[in-house]
Amino acid sequence: MRIQEIKDPRFLKKYNEKELNELCTDIRKFIINSVSKTGGHLASNLGVVELTVALHYVFTSPYDKFIFDVGHQSYTHKILTGRADKFNTLRQYGGMSGFQKRDESIHDPFESGHTSTSIAAALGFAYVRDLNKEKNDVIAIIGDGSLTGGLAFEALNNIENLNTKVIIVLNDNSMSISKNVGGLSKFLKKIRISNSYDLAKKGYKGVLIKTSIGTKIYNLSSKIKEKFKRKINDNIFTNLDIDYIGPIDGHNIKELIKAFKKSKNSKKSILIHVVTKKGKGYKPAEINSSTWHGVGNFDVESGSLKKENLTSLSEVVSNTVYEFMKKDKSIITITPAMIKGSKLEKIFQDFPNRSIDTGITESFATTLACSIALNKKKVFLPIYSSFLQRAYDNINHDIARMNTHVIIGIDRAGLVGEDGDTHHGIFDISFLNSIPNLVICMGKDNEEIRNLLYTGFYKQENPFCIRYEKECIEFKKSALKEIKVGTWEYLQKIKTCKNTIISYGTDVSKLYDIFKNKKVNIINARYIKPIDKEILKELIKTKQNIYVYETSIRTNSLGTNILEYFNYKNASNKVRLTGIDNEYIKHGKTNILKQQLNLDLEYIKEDIINYFKLK
Amino acid sequence: MRIQEIKDPRFLKKYNEKELNELCTDIRKFIINSVSKTGGHLASNLGVVELTVALHYVFTSPYDKFIFDVGHQSYTHKILTGRADKFNTLRQYGGMSGFQKRDESIHDPFESGHTSTSIAAALGFAYVRDLNKEKNDVIAIIGDGSLTGGLAFEALNNIENLNTKVIIVLNDNSMSISKNVGGLSKFLKKIRISNSYDLAKKGYKGVLIKTSIGTKIYNLSSKIKEKFKRKINDNIFTNLDIDYIGPIDGHNIKELIKAFKKSKNSKKSILIHVVTKKGKGYKPAEINSSTWHGVGNFDVESGSLKKENLTSLSEVVSNTVYEFMKKDKSIITITPAMIKGSKLEKIFQDFPNRSIDTGITESFATTLACSIALNKKKVFLPIYSSFLQRAYDNINHDIARMNTHVIIGIDRAGLVGEDGDTHHGIFDISFLNSIPNLVICMGKDNEEIRNLLYTGFYKQENPFCIRYEKECIEFKKSALKEIKVGTWEYLQKIKTCKNTIISYGTDVSKLYDIFKNKKVNIINARYIKPIDKEILKELIKTKQNIYVYETSIRTNSLGTNILEYFNYKNASNKVRLTGIDNEYIKHGKTNILKQQLNLDLEYIKEDIINYFKLK
Repeated sequence: MRIQEIKDPRFLKKYNEKELNELCTDIRKFIINSVSKTGGHLASNLGVVELTVALHYVFTSPYDKFIFDVGHQSYTHKILTGRADKFNTLRQYGGMSGFQKRDESIHDPFESGHTSTSIAAALGFAYVRDLNKEKNDVIAIIGDGSLTGGLAFEALNNIENLNTKVIIVLNDNSMSISKNVGGLSKFLKKIRISNSYDLAKKGYKGVLIKTSIGTKIYNLSSKIKEKFKRKINDNIFTNLDIDYIGPIDGHNIKELIKAFKKSKNSKKSILIHVVTKKGKGYKPAEINSSTWHGVGNFDVESGSLKKENLTSLSEVVSNTVYEFMKKDKSIITITPAMIKGSKLEKIFQDFPNRSIDTGITESFATTLACSIALNKKKVFLPIYSSFLQRAYDNINHDIARMNTHVIIGIDRAGLVGEDGDTHHGIFDISFLNSIPNLVICMGKDNEEIRNLLYTGFYKQENPFCIRYEKECIEFKKSALKEIKVGTWEYLQKIKTCKNTIISYGTDVSKLYDIFKNKKVNIINARYIKPIDKEILKELIKTKQNIYVYETSIRTNSLGTNILEYFNYKNASNKVRLTGIDNEYIKHGKTNILKQQLNLDLEYIKEDIINYFKLK
Repeated sequence: MRIQEIKDPRFLKKYNEKELNELCTDIRKFIINSVSKTGGHLASNLGVVELTVALHYVFTSPYDKFIFDVGHQSYTHKILTGRADKFNTLRQYGGMSGFQKRDESIHDPFESGHTSTSIAAALGFAYVRDLNKEKNDVIAIIGDGSLTGGLAFEALNNIENLNTKVIIVLNDNSMSISKNVGGLSKFLKKIRISNSYDLAKKGYKGVLIKTSIGTKIYNLSSKIKEKFKRKINDNIFTNLDIDYIGPIDGHNIKELIKAFKKSKNSKKSILIHVVTKKGKGYKPAEINSSTWHGVGNFDVESGSLKKENLTSLSEVVSNTVYEFMKKDKSIITITPAMIKGSKLEKIFQDFPNRSIDTGITESFATTLACSIALNKKKVFLPIYSSFLQRAYDNINHDIARMNTHVIIGIDRAGLVGEDGDTHHGIFDISFLNSIPNLVICMGKDNEEIRNLLYTGFYKQENPFCIRYEKECIEFKKSALKEIKVGTWEYLQKIKTCKNTIISYGTDVSKLYDIFKNKKVNIINARYIKPIDKEILKELIKTKQNIYVYETSIRTNSLGTNILEYFNYKNASNKVRLTGIDNEYIKHGKTNILKQQLNLDLEYIKEDIINYFKLK
């Protein structure tokens, strides 16, 4: 069958092993070609082609429920459930999401974007199935990276408690986005290696035994192998009262089908440990799956990705912290599995003793940062805005309450585009703004970002949150100077002018470019919290009309802080706020999303002109 | 030595076993007498007397770091570190905290109040110790209840990764506040039972083998015992590359000292599994440790606790949900370990198939609730305000984004008194207010709370947050009626009057009692979100002066919503906001705290009179 003609996965049931394997080859080709044009998640999807085909062969969606953890590895699932024809719209505005979405297909029973939710979700479905005396299966497909998140463990630990049956497919590729870390990861590796003899016979040796430790253990006596085998039977999962099968070769359809059938017949919750290769079937992605985790469009033949000449703001930040770390041994960098995304490669390479990748554990990383900072260290903790949500309590209860010197880098602040509603960094100001002791700031350009970092590390000791967008810029080393906490600056101040624009981040630079030499004051409110009361008092005194430009959730933003202060001061200034209404924003290019929200600069320019009657 | 004369724990080192045991007896007496007068956490503290004494015997605080998870079980530690003389001020305003506090003693290196942070904290201290090439030990003392929290697992999983040594003392009393749940708990029980033969010889049989399962297993053949023993060596902890010793009788000083010495000499991170009895040494607390977890003052002889004649708001809520559940099989109740605190005993007893205690797992409980609600069920999810912080992402990313029908009961909303800064429920509005789709409300009395619940369950389908304070009230069954979402009510409306008080919850009832028949309008803003735009438009039209009374963090509260709407409408109403400034609030009786914050009704009454010039 042609990929695009697939309407429903039931056709699979009649396929034999050869046909299933051919289908996998076709799907892989389709995904590579498709993603090369639209961009998207590649390596993770190539790793689970056979796994997904085998699941749809054994189980019957939507009767049985398929819940992909995170969901960005569900492309084969999307193809098999009749969505191949939408791949040309993948991740585009109005097009198909890169994740599972309930409103996209009855084959998507749950949706996410953040990791580690799938087992909890599966348990909910299974619990209600039992209540309703139904018989369908519920399958969570979760990577070993996602399994290190505490939420996944809470769910694993509750399987016995909820007394229901779920099937967990552990997709073990030994990666999160970067190499996976931690005791569990090491343990899974031991299991894989202990079984390497069987797999090696099947020509699998090369994949599994690539480290020197691997080779050593491979050569160990059968006695020690026996010890590891025992671990497989008495392991972390069986300790939690979950049956275990594995490891299974994740690219062997026959083995997969056998294991999944076993799990289907099991009365008890069961985890199937499937070993896959991220990027499988596309050499460049196999070799460097981290780079090929999520990509823009690329040339299939050469495997060459489009390169940017500009530097991302993440890199501006990490370059600057690198400079500090070079001179200052009291700085520690911590990342929850985002060495690559947060551009920390150089820091990790050159300061291995002061760099910690905690795996996908935003909560732990944050409390660890707090504890380290209590010991007279300064901690740099970059986390994507949307994932920082997972550390709200650790920020409030630990870092802010004990008022520790942690510099939180809020990466991907603002709308992020194609990843959509689960990834937009539009909530961070709203949930951080009411937490005591925190400083929240955003720099307008390379130099200001550097100066804010300098200030955060060296001129104050509060927890210091610096936001930066998913944008590129020209990076330059520049002399460092303090920007006193809570001070704003005029980018343009016109005598006797009664109109003032207030904004921050690269937005305020863009507004300045537009309104340079126009009759309007422009203030760079680089500190969202605390606000600059001196400047605000002046604005009150001179009765300025004010226009606040922001592109995150409007409620509890800089605008709120200004309104509250004006209210406290009984000010009567006219103030216009902008920002995102209380709603979730779908996926699509950021500029299109901004247009839809009337937050693009074209619209804002006209709005400001009208508001201030500048014409 | 007299308990009150202890200044420093070093005196212990010279004690022999007999003296140590005598000291434990004295400490126990002291704690019972002291807590009987001041109230406080009793059962948990009585369980760890020997454990704490043995730790201070083997290790040297503050050189070695003692980090108690949560911290409310640190009373013996406080006594041994020279704070016995402050126990008469325990949990009182200006007095000694019920938790570890850095500013209280150099023996408190970290502080918490929420569970499951101790291992992360210990890792931070150990990491810096290694960096600084120091040699001290870091000890996390954590209960089996706290161990079910995902944050604790994230930390356990990172021990191997951080390549440092910490000592974890697992205080296994098989309880959180209620009976502990989950696969790990079951596994720990197996370990305890497998070792029961040894312990039974020491007269410990009665404690460990009290269930029928326990007795059965106790009688099994040595072969099966051997199997369990193997599990002890290959278990969840050793899988994560952490050495394991145990189980140790937690009331046997000699055994404890031996185990702790072993851990001190270990080069590797190690977990010591200590079995304790919550409430040990005070019969009423041994028998019902759940009731005696945290108590008010009591009579030591009779063991009788003061009883309240009124019903707590938690019970008003749970009674009402009970009525619904009785008639409506589509309602499921989920609690993260708070059956007792949230007054859910009757629900769990009468609807066991529709009640889930997930253990201390706010994140998991919330995502599970979301998933169950997606399956055409209504979920009641009561969580203390301060603990709800831990589920911010699960509320935003799961429940609100998928817009599921979960009724979140925000218990202990507002200032909670003696537990202090980690427990005050003052942040929930501020972090929930900017999340799309959520409804946030609060009832002024028994009847309104019931009607809001009725509305939440039956007259709307959004996620619905109902807040209620730690207060008591008279419970009455009352006819149920809808309170349309987003509608407020006038409790008092005076013709031509230009002054309006706005508040919600029992506060607005109290204000009504004060200002009844005075020349002031009183509005009950029972929906904090969404606000009542019709009433607000009227207030704009009639140019009302407005006084908003709130007792949570002021930024991003109802007042913020009103200011934002007035701004949007270009309204020029005079508005006065109240609430807690951006700061953490210490422990103490709620009425005293409110006085300190100028939020008590005496002050507010005068302030309103002055503001409206009512005199």
